[in-house]
Amino acid sequence: MDSSQFRKAAHAAIEDIIKYRDTISERNVLPSISPGYLGPLLPDAAPEDGEEWSKIQSDIDRVIMPGLTHWQSPKFMAFYPCNASLPGILGDMYSGAFNAAAFNWICSPAVTELETIVMDWVGKLINLPDCYRSDGEGGGIIQGTASEVVVTAVVAARERILRRRLIDMPEGEEKIDKMAEMRGKLVAMGSEHAHSSTQKAAIIAGTRFRAVPAPQSAGFAVTKAALRKTIEECKARGLEPFYYTATLGSTATCAIDDLVGIAELAKEFPDIWIHVDAAYAGSALICPEYQHLTKPMEDFDSFNFNLHKWLLVNFDCSAFYIKRRKDLIDTYSIVPSYLRNNFSESGLVTDYRDWQIPLGRRFRSLKVWFVLRTYGVNGLRVLIRNHIKLGEYFHSLLLSRTDVFKVITGPAFALTTFVLNPKKVEGATEAQDLLAGNKLTQEVYEAVNRKGEFFLTSGVLDGVYAIRVVSATENAEEKYLKALFEGLIELAGEYRDGYRDKVVEQAI
Amino acid sequence: MDSSQFRKAAHAAIEDIIKYRDTISERNVLPSISPGYLGPLLPDAAPEDGEEWSKIQSDIDRVIMPGLTHWQSPKFMAFYPCNASLPGILGDMYSGAFNAAAFNWICSPAVTELETIVMDWVGKLINLPDCYRSDGEGGGIIQGTASEVVVTAVVAARERILRRRLIDMPEGEEKIDKMAEMRGKLVAMGSEHAHSSTQKAAIIAGTRFRAVPAPQSAGFAVTKAALRKTIEECKARGLEPFYYTATLGSTATCAIDDLVGIAELAKEFPDIWIHVDAAYAGSALICPEYQHLTKPMEDFDSFNFNLHKWLLVNFDCSAFYIKRRKDLIDTYSIVPSYLRNNFSESGLVTDYRDWQIPLGRRFRSLKVWFVLRTYGVNGLRVLIRNHIKLGEYFHSLLLSRTDVFKVITGPAFALTTFVLNPKKVEGATEAQDLLAGNKLTQEVYEAVNRKGEFFLTSGVLDGVYAIRVVSATENAEEKYLKALFEGLIELAGEYRDGYRDKVVEQAI
Repeated sequence: MDSSQFRKAAHAAIEDIIKYRDTISERNVLPSISPGYLGPLLPDAAPEDGEEWSKIQSDIDRVIMPGLTHWQSPKFMAFYPCNASLPGILGDMYSGAFNAAAFNWICSPAVTELETIVMDWVGKLINLPDCYRSDGEGGGIIQGTASEVVVTAVVAARERILRRRLIDMPEGEEKIDKMAEMRGKLVAMGSEHAHSSTQKAAIIAGTRFRAVPAPQSAGFAVTKAALRKTIEECKARGLEPFYYTATLGSTATCAIDDLVGIAELAKEFPDIWIHVDAAYAGSALICPEYQHLTKPMEDFDSFNFNLHKWLLVNFDCSAFYIKRRKDLIDTYSIVPSYLRNNFSESGLVTDYRDWQIPLGRRFRSLKVWFVLRTYGVNGLRVLIRNHIKLGEYFHSLLLSRTDVFKVITGPAFALTTFVLNPKKVEGATEAQDLLAGNKLTQEVYEAVNRKGEFFLTSGVLDGVYAIRVVSATENAEEKYLKALFEGLIELAGEYRDGYRDKVVEQAI
Repeated sequence: MDSSQFRKAAHAAIEDIIKYRDTISERNVLPSISPGYLGPLLPDAAPEDGEEWSKIQSDIDRVIMPGLTHWQSPKFMAFYPCNASLPGILGDMYSGAFNAAAFNWICSPAVTELETIVMDWVGKLINLPDCYRSDGEGGGIIQGTASEVVVTAVVAARERILRRRLIDMPEGEEKIDKMAEMRGKLVAMGSEHAHSSTQKAAIIAGTRFRAVPAPQSAGFAVTKAALRKTIEECKARGLEPFYYTATLGSTATCAIDDLVGIAELAKEFPDIWIHVDAAYAGSALICPEYQHLTKPMEDFDSFNFNLHKWLLVNFDCSAFYIKRRKDLIDTYSIVPSYLRNNFSESGLVTDYRDWQIPLGRRFRSLKVWFVLRTYGVNGLRVLIRNHIKLGEYFHSLLLSRTDVFKVITGPAFALTTFVLNPKKVEGATEAQDLLAGNKLTQEVYEAVNRKGEFFLTSGVLDGVYAIRVVSATENAEEKYLKALFEGLIELAGEYRDGYRDKVVEQAI
């Protein structure tokens, strides 16, 4: 492919991208193909000779498009959003041109330095305390996903507590034996409603894991008392809690742990590394009305949120902030001879490879820089506040029909969870009502996704099967939430009452 | 940014990309800026209001370009290459448009299914044994970097040996205690010349690490006998070796471990997970003349190579093949309620999140698909063979001046390592000669990089300071190697003999 062939192909790709984005609301979010659809559509080996771009391009419509789930659609209300944007795509185009495995400063100074600068911009934007800034002992780094961040923090926390406890022991086999023994006693903790990444990180780090209870009575959040109880239970068993993921916006309900209380606890237990996972809700911190939430971070060790969720930066881009970057470098820095260079040894530059698990790094700060500059702080605030308002709107729709729906949580950062009320049965026990409600809610939920126009997810909250709705794509609008609501009413008629016409009439 | 603004911006970006690539050989590879250059050129916070694209675009030339190291330049001969290509850039454009956190099948079936298909294509292309194919018990997955792959393999290996040893023990706290105790005895192994990622992976996994000697007398490769000796030494100390990274193309010299011998050993020690890291050299396996190397893989557990190094797929794209995918899933699968879905539970689909550390996944198979189809198998073979020939050419240049240079290793997969001969000093000991040679080689090496036209790396091989040269970018040509060689001769005159004119005359 020469330059002029590329120009032609790229212009065609741009038209495909524009058309895709401009017409996305007309598609069903979920594809209707079955597992294994793609194999029969493609040859079973790479072609011997190169093919024309026009042939390759036509295959995108023919074989790829039917198998896509459209996360950029305003009818996508599942999980949390994963928003791309046009300046984000431009960022990746330049990143591809400047392609490098930029693992240390000299491998491409602009990659490192722009990342430091935009991470400081973002840290200020979300009102993260100054201690997380690169001009002190902290700093930000772009990672792929929140789950990578959590593994990185858990492993660094595991090694930090060992270093601290064995600071007086001379290096050697005896110390290595002692460290191995101590590792076996360590316990990572996370809310029972924290993302499963903390549990997975504990597996990867080879430590134990304890879920801290976060019942409905506490709003599905971890309280200071609950965390203290878990810590004390561990210690009573001779185990050593060393890490806790505090949640600012849990996956299931967008609940917020008692950060102020946990910050007090952090002072009592300074060897427990507290990481705050704000993967989705963290983007809302760009709005002053949420910024009081960041005050307790001063007493924690690290923080992350995903700009690729709610802040229009193409996947992947998780911002990971560390209060003392030394806590990462002490664990992750290894310098074989082929990576030595005078710049790194001068101590004047940042080598982000020593802050993370992988070696190589992409030029991801470009897309962040482009998005921040294209939208501006005010443009991004408008976006977030619009989604918050849409969440309140959907919540108000549910409240208008308490005969059909019961809200479980929210609206919290645009997420509402709810159930369908089962038919009243004379003399049914509470447990029977719960089972009936769970069955109905699951049936309606599965019917929505089977239809495929909208995509929702569900979760189990203290035994209650609930539907989650969060509408926060760039092109989200009230009308889509209204259409979803009407569809839910209709399905409630079908599945709950065994008839539909009357309910539909009421709804329209 | 609306569609028409995007069209205009993207067309301008395409012209930037074309111009950058078409003129890249005219630039110095290394930038001439100093650490901290970027800060004073940018504001210290994100703008309040959105900016015009033209303003943002002009900043790329103004502030980014001066800070780039040009990995796509034919004068880049450092590390190993990190080749982008035009179809690779198109792949990332579509991937940005279809942006999704595609962690399981239903999150975007095309993302999963195309990945399975192109990984099978690539597996066939490099003649990997059938057991690594998705239609049996194995399969391929795209990971970011070889270092991520190695961590993923080490952790899975650690858990596999524990599962096997404790298969008869009932689940519960007692088993967890026993596992913790056993983890403390485990030893991961890698060649002393393996990439540092194995040592880093052992730190992350919380296990011990042993480097297996690979001296010059063994061609810097690990022999069966050396690996057996390390295993036996571990066992004699009461430790349990559980993992070995075999190297097909070491970082320093592109050496290949004795794979046939190690495969024999693997049968004796079936609980040791053998992973083959072919990060760079693996791409050469697309040529039949190298495919005999893959036969021993039948007896190993996993294999990876980086298509982003030598096979023109934009960074990042490391192909990770596993013989029994269950070995990954048994460690990495966690299914909280919000990730449950009927497709995953049917067992008919692949959820790649269960094969890896992070949750979310990009649509990276698109760029692989585009590159394989645009170049075709034959086009890629031409590329690899051209680079092999260039390596032989550079080697022949060095041999033409044995008065100045001494080859240490290679040409191996286009990589040659060499030193400069120091001035003969009457009565100097061997150790003094070595020191003088190291000093001279390092001085010349640093002078090349200081100049910045070319970028080389160095390494220390059994105490010998050597320069590495590998010219394997898409636009590599003899003339650049010739120019480098002449520059080296000139610098040898300056640093070794204290004069330059005569030497320069000889060289030109």
